[in-house]
Amino acid sequence: MPELRKDPIVSRWVIISTERAKRPINIFSAAERAMPEADNSFCPFDAGNETDTPHEVLSYRAEGAGPQGTNWTLRVVPNKFPALMIEGELGRRADGIYDKMNGIGAHEVIIETQKHNEQLADLPEERFQDVLWAYRDRIIDLKKDTRFRYILIFKNHGLGAGASLDHSHSQLIALPIIPKSVAEELLGSKNYYEYKERCIYCDIVSQEIDEQTRVVSENEDFIAMCPYAPRFPFETWVLPKHHRSHYEDCTRSELKNLTSLFQRTLHRLNKALDYPPYNFMLHTSPVSMTTLPYYHWHIEITPRITRVAGFERGSGFYINPTAPEVSAQFLKELGLP
Amino acid sequence: MPELRKDPIVSRWVIISTERAKRPINIFSAAERAMPEADNSFCPFDAGNETDTPHEVLSYRAEGAGPQGTNWTLRVVPNKFPALMIEGELGRRADGIYDKMNGIGAHEVIIETQKHNEQLADLPEERFQDVLWAYRDRIIDLKKDTRFRYILIFKNHGLGAGASLDHSHSQLIALPIIPKSVAEELLGSKNYYEYKERCIYCDIVSQEIDEQTRVVSENEDFIAMCPYAPRFPFETWVLPKHHRSHYEDCTRSELKNLTSLFQRTLHRLNKALDYPPYNFMLHTSPVSMTTLPYYHWHIEITPRITRVAGFERGSGFYINPTAPEVSAQFLKELGLP
Repeated sequence: MPELRKDPIVSRWVIISTERAKRPINIFSAAERAMPEADNSFCPFDAGNETDTPHEVLSYRAEGAGPQGTNWTLRVVPNKFPALMIEGELGRRADGIYDKMNGIGAHEVIIETQKHNEQLADLPEERFQDVLWAYRDRIIDLKKDTRFRYILIFKNHGLGAGASLDHSHSQLIALPIIPKSVAEELLGSKNYYEYKERCIYCDIVSQEIDEQTRVVSENEDFIAMCPYAPRFPFETWVLPKHHRSHYEDCTRSELKNLTSLFQRTLHRLNKALDYPPYNFMLHTSPVSMTTLPYYHWHIEITPRITRVAGFERGSGFYINPTAPEVSAQFLKELGLP
Repeated sequence: MPELRKDPIVSRWVIISTERAKRPINIFSAAERAMPEADNSFCPFDAGNETDTPHEVLSYRAEGAGPQGTNWTLRVVPNKFPALMIEGELGRRADGIYDKMNGIGAHEVIIETQKHNEQLADLPEERFQDVLWAYRDRIIDLKKDTRFRYILIFKNHGLGAGASLDHSHSQLIALPIIPKSVAEELLGSKNYYEYKERCIYCDIVSQEIDEQTRVVSENEDFIAMCPYAPRFPFETWVLPKHHRSHYEDCTRSELKNLTSLFQRTLHRLNKALDYPPYNFMLHTSPVSMTTLPYYHWHIEITPRITRVAGFERGSGFYINPTAPEVSAQFLKELGLP
């Protein structure tokens, strides 16, 4: 059983998931470290290989198609090597001065396409929207489980961004804790709200729309912008223009506007940076909380174009060689079809 | 002039240092990203190339040797491409709802050896101790500058850990702010102290010595251990056994004991993990604060043996496939000469 353990000093929860390692001690030799991941000819996410994934928890299929078979456009399945286990009690307990609990959670994979080489950014717009809709569907389903406090949704695209399979997919982890980065945002935005009685993200959106120096693009409901203090070159955020605390409260019409802005932002990054590896993560409110006046969901996209970071890892302190005004201007002025 | 900018939500300071980029937009093409750093035949840190570094701020030389020439064993020089500038005022100011200041700070390189291929772990013990002593010397000198709040000392070893030059060196950055990770540790340990009236690190050391399951080795003054909730496989911390808040208060005899434990810990990691890339960072109290009853300096060593992390970057949430009890046991039982 994996464990969730808490660092007692900074209150960071970590999953100790030894079952995932292929060997008792998961050591890569120097030679293995230098090599890219082996190119597997068999892909469990390809159409026709449905029986090689765990049983699907959600799928979108053409109207009239039966529930079995290959006639799907999107599937959500449990991760075959989950970092957390879905069955069991949390079992919160002390371990001397430390805290731990059982590694309970859901770990799912959103398979975004049947085709092995089709990338998320290149999907037809309606199918890109399906992916965003699937995130919403899964959050709504999983929030019924009261053991979970947070649903983390993210994508690792490309080997350099930590993807272990080529086939386009995103991941979902339902957690009995709130991840540290989100907990920090909740605390920071709550403090601001107590002081100003305004949502800090709403204030950011408002200042950015006024200044226009860090805006990449906008439509009626959403804005894509490079944040004021970005950790990474070309870091880009997508935020709702109007106050919304929970992603799963998006309407169809909002998701349609999110799709066009988000997908075009990926096109811009691909064009500007020559199809970089990237990560994105949905930052949304804990499912255990009702509508919050101070927190505002958003998506953070971080291309991986600089070489491996060194001290940033230990210090939480970043040196960024590209000003957000420069990257926003560059992305904005790209000619897109 | 580089800028220090603050993320208004989570209070993270970032250096926007556009001068460091070789091109206005520091983009690596896909081909460049895949290639290791070019192997430069010329190394400015080699003996004989002293004039190719900025003027040294500290050096250790054989007794009787003149101040010039190649007769040194350790040199500290300003970074030729500093992320921060030493001259100027902080100029703290608002930028709408945001905060920024001038990118004032010191950025120095500790050249640990004359020899291009000699690694820190392989130095004779007295010379390893010199490196630790140089950290102390530089902190004591730089803390006289009241613009600085924190002296960050770290090492990136190997390309996979972000080192851009092969020649063995560590880095120092003097900052007018406290890095986020240290600020979090200060806050967490202060909260604990207010509640318990004990230092949390002292409590950790005490529990670890009792339990012995995560201890790698110890001597009179120091302990090397794998922390209870490690982010990375084989993450290892070195801590003073007795309460010490500031690294620069180390005595000669303490640094001697630190040397033997720290260097052997690097030997263990090298032997266990086949000479992995690694980072270490000294976590010590802000130079602007006097002796603290609640904070305890320590060194965090993080080998880079897993493939590039994905979502950890955005979530502050880590999945670690190796339990610290397993890595500590493995490191402890290695036969060292």
